[in-house]
Amino acid sequence: MIKIRVQLLLFFSFVSSFAFAQNKVQKWEIFEFALQGPSEGNPYVGTTFSARFTNGDHVLDQEGFYDGNGTYIVRFMPDKEGAWNYVTSSNKSQLNGKKGTFECIKAAPTNHGPVRVSDKFHFKYEDGTAYYPFGTTIYEWPFQEESKKKQTIETLKSSPFNKARFLAVPPYKDRYIDGPNKLTIFPFEGTNKDNWDFSKFNPVYFKNLDSCVMELKKLGIEADIILFRPYDKGKWGFDTAGQEVNRSFARYMVARYAAFSNIWWSLANENSFIKNMSDEDWDDLFKLVQQKDPYHHLRSIHNADKIYDYTKPWVTHVSYQYYNVVKSPIGTAILRDIYGKPIVNDENNYEGDIDSRWGQLTGEEMTFRTWNAVIGGGYATHGESYKASPWISYGGTLIGTSPARIGFLRKIVESNPVGNLEPIDHFFENNMAGKEGEFYLIYFGKENLNKWDFVLPKKGLAKGAKYKADIIDTWNMTITPVAKTFEIIQMPGNNYKFIDKDNSSIKLPAKPYMALRIYKVADGEKVLNDGRHELE
Amino acid sequence: MIKIRVQLLLFFSFVSSFAFAQNKVQKWEIFEFALQGPSEGNPYVGTTFSARFTNGDHVLDQEGFYDGNGTYIVRFMPDKEGAWNYVTSSNKSQLNGKKGTFECIKAAPTNHGPVRVSDKFHFKYEDGTAYYPFGTTIYEWPFQEESKKKQTIETLKSSPFNKARFLAVPPYKDRYIDGPNKLTIFPFEGTNKDNWDFSKFNPVYFKNLDSCVMELKKLGIEADIILFRPYDKGKWGFDTAGQEVNRSFARYMVARYAAFSNIWWSLANENSFIKNMSDEDWDDLFKLVQQKDPYHHLRSIHNADKIYDYTKPWVTHVSYQYYNVVKSPIGTAILRDIYGKPIVNDENNYEGDIDSRWGQLTGEEMTFRTWNAVIGGGYATHGESYKASPWISYGGTLIGTSPARIGFLRKIVESNPVGNLEPIDHFFENNMAGKEGEFYLIYFGKENLNKWDFVLPKKGLAKGAKYKADIIDTWNMTITPVAKTFEIIQMPGNNYKFIDKDNSSIKLPAKPYMALRIYKVADGEKVLNDGRHELE
Repeated sequence: MIKIRVQLLLFFSFVSSFAFAQNKVQKWEIFEFALQGPSEGNPYVGTTFSARFTNGDHVLDQEGFYDGNGTYIVRFMPDKEGAWNYVTSSNKSQLNGKKGTFECIKAAPTNHGPVRVSDKFHFKYEDGTAYYPFGTTIYEWPFQEESKKKQTIETLKSSPFNKARFLAVPPYKDRYIDGPNKLTIFPFEGTNKDNWDFSKFNPVYFKNLDSCVMELKKLGIEADIILFRPYDKGKWGFDTAGQEVNRSFARYMVARYAAFSNIWWSLANENSFIKNMSDEDWDDLFKLVQQKDPYHHLRSIHNADKIYDYTKPWVTHVSYQYYNVVKSPIGTAILRDIYGKPIVNDENNYEGDIDSRWGQLTGEEMTFRTWNAVIGGGYATHGESYKASPWISYGGTLIGTSPARIGFLRKIVESNPVGNLEPIDHFFENNMAGKEGEFYLIYFGKENLNKWDFVLPKKGLAKGAKYKADIIDTWNMTITPVAKTFEIIQMPGNNYKFIDKDNSSIKLPAKPYMALRIYKVADGEKVLNDGRHELE
Repeated sequence: MIKIRVQLLLFFSFVSSFAFAQNKVQKWEIFEFALQGPSEGNPYVGTTFSARFTNGDHVLDQEGFYDGNGTYIVRFMPDKEGAWNYVTSSNKSQLNGKKGTFECIKAAPTNHGPVRVSDKFHFKYEDGTAYYPFGTTIYEWPFQEESKKKQTIETLKSSPFNKARFLAVPPYKDRYIDGPNKLTIFPFEGTNKDNWDFSKFNPVYFKNLDSCVMELKKLGIEADIILFRPYDKGKWGFDTAGQEVNRSFARYMVARYAAFSNIWWSLANENSFIKNMSDEDWDDLFKLVQQKDPYHHLRSIHNADKIYDYTKPWVTHVSYQYYNVVKSPIGTAILRDIYGKPIVNDENNYEGDIDSRWGQLTGEEMTFRTWNAVIGGGYATHGESYKASPWISYGGTLIGTSPARIGFLRKIVESNPVGNLEPIDHFFENNMAGKEGEFYLIYFGKENLNKWDFVLPKKGLAKGAKYKADIIDTWNMTITPVAKTFEIIQMPGNNYKFIDKDNSSIKLPAKPYMALRIYKVADGEKVLNDGRHELE
């Protein structure tokens, strides 16, 4: 007998995600059912359980997971409207051959589905809506007290961030051993490294993670969840349990979380600091996640000192840590050409004032590095590490100056008329992105220019085309239209540049962190491509 | 009967390479013998011919090549002193089972053997002598008139360059069709695309290449020979002959040139501009060269717009074209971490004044980009493209201002006390290379500093250690010792830096292109490594 299940939650409610009765489920929302099965022995090891879902000729296999107390759950994300039938498979008769059906209805306007790679270097939601990652980092937020978690969600609500990176397993820290933050629940059965049973998971621990992922989903925030981390300091042994435990943990995570449309799989943070794991181990875990996730959520891994080979086919995008890459737009543009995938600079140091130099950026520098990533044709992830408010660790409140500026940049990116921003003439230029001939976002970084001569690389340009320009103060968040309309001609004696026919410049305030936005308002003569090899 | 052969040459003499009678050959020099065999039919296709060379338990198989007029040649580079025996194998009785012997004697002091990858990111000669590539580019020099070739060799003699990149097959140009530079010999039999026989090579063409490679060898210059190129403009069809012709050409080149100790295999120039060849075709050619070359000379490929995956195992080093990489030291340091191989920036635009922007660098800019590559822990290759002296195309004379400065840099690199220069604290710093604690080369590029505060990253440093410094003017080529000796202490309140105990600075002339050379003269207290994860 299949009973539709109301899940117990620690502090958030699932109800909003089940706004429809479970016989009707929105596309890309969660359909979930539970069965009672054997609880004796070790259900995590001894029992296989999955369901095959069918909608016409569209078939998806979703593994189930054991949730304790004899309860077995299948959590499914329908990705096609219409009637779905399902039937379970198990090596236990109570869980085998159980059938059911439900109807997948139209997604709500705010529900765009999972994020996918689009146009090689960028992203889109599955419904085609544009998605530009402006993420933040809150590694340990799921493991804080209820009030802090609520505060984090409140902060995110009014933040510019649409992706959150966090750990599925906390780092070892004294605060989790003693005092108010003492952890009483862990991913495995047991209370400390002397009595872990790595063959048994702890459902209560994952119910908390369930609700954290769901709360982000409700806010439209992608959950860039990190499966493995090196921060164990030899205490708990979670990062030295061996590849078989790693595999079973990854498989349980995929069975439990793949149905959340906002999941991104981050195989690890700073993977090369886990010294007992090889690249082959990571390849193996990537392939396992790829095989078990019926919805093919995004997959990456976050490097430390040794850089994983992001060209491998199971990596969907680059999740980089390399601070110098974002010190100018050049770095991200190069990474695009090397990897041929979206570049997300997921750790660029953090705005803050802690003793460690990786947490000492000014708000200006954090904003500067984010702009550089975008002008390079990629993306960057925010982090904040003030002594007074260690957001990257525990969440809570944001007190830095960069989030507002990152929000300002996000508006500029999302409101641009050409969609994805690509580096322009990027083998020679290094401060402009947009679309040749149509739209140019030119960033001057730390230069203090008092003017910019109206000169653009020729590709896509044509004599007589007309352009308007806005002066952008990326720090003070102002956009000032330039009164003049610019009409372009080829630069005399230069085969590579176009200029304004009056040789005009745009006056700038001789301050750092200025940018220009230039957009076409009238076509010129037909463009001819001379097909020359620019690299010869 | 085996006769020791004296080869006819077009304009240079082989004699110097046979300073010893052929029964005695220097280690890493060339032992060559010829046999008379069938000339009817197509010897290039119908006849297999190779020799197995044995010295104790050291065995090398060297393919032979057909040289026309019934002459079959085996060209061998002994890499071990002592008695070598050889026996030929062929599907033709005249060429099969011929035996011989010779003695490999000690290499002359100037003869260091082939260049190998060393210390992951660098190079050494096989005898262990340091080799730092400071190359230049003379794509078409072998295809010019005799006097021009001689002039090129004379120019190289007095130049700072120890590697030359050039094409094995000329590009299609009008000059090679008509006038004094009209090419009368081609790599294949025939005179134009209507009558090429791609199944037959033209020995006269390769005899010229033989002598060009040998002349470079005599000068101690590595021959970075480019097997394939896209510059055919649809005229000769050399780049559209198909993979089987590509394979037979590569195999003939390896059989003919592998015995030259100074050969580097560059599979192609701007390979992605050869639109009818796939990455799989290049993989196939790499593997063929790797398999047929008994001496395992260096192998790379030079990219254009699409970057080949240099992590592939048959690539020994990175031969890059990406101008922005060398606009700061950051780029080369990142490429080291991505590829884990030596980085040679083989095309960084050229010093010159031609109409194409890739040939418009000032001498200052060419020198600047070369310094950036070195400070990034890699290397760069020079090129010069003045209208008055198109060195990169035809050789001849150098009229630019960068070669002298590159020679000055080469002396600094070769005379440094620590050997290979590695980027220092390179996740955070980006203008210093050397060896922590021992030697620092700090490059200020286009900055116009009037002083440099004596501050170094802590790794390898210890309280009380003493340092001396030289001020280097990289453009005017002066080295000025600083009178003071600096004694270091940890910077108060900073866990990452050491400073001079008197808080000293070094006065600089507020000009661009200045550098500092800092070296230890006395040890300090014992260094403790706190093992912190700098990337966390």
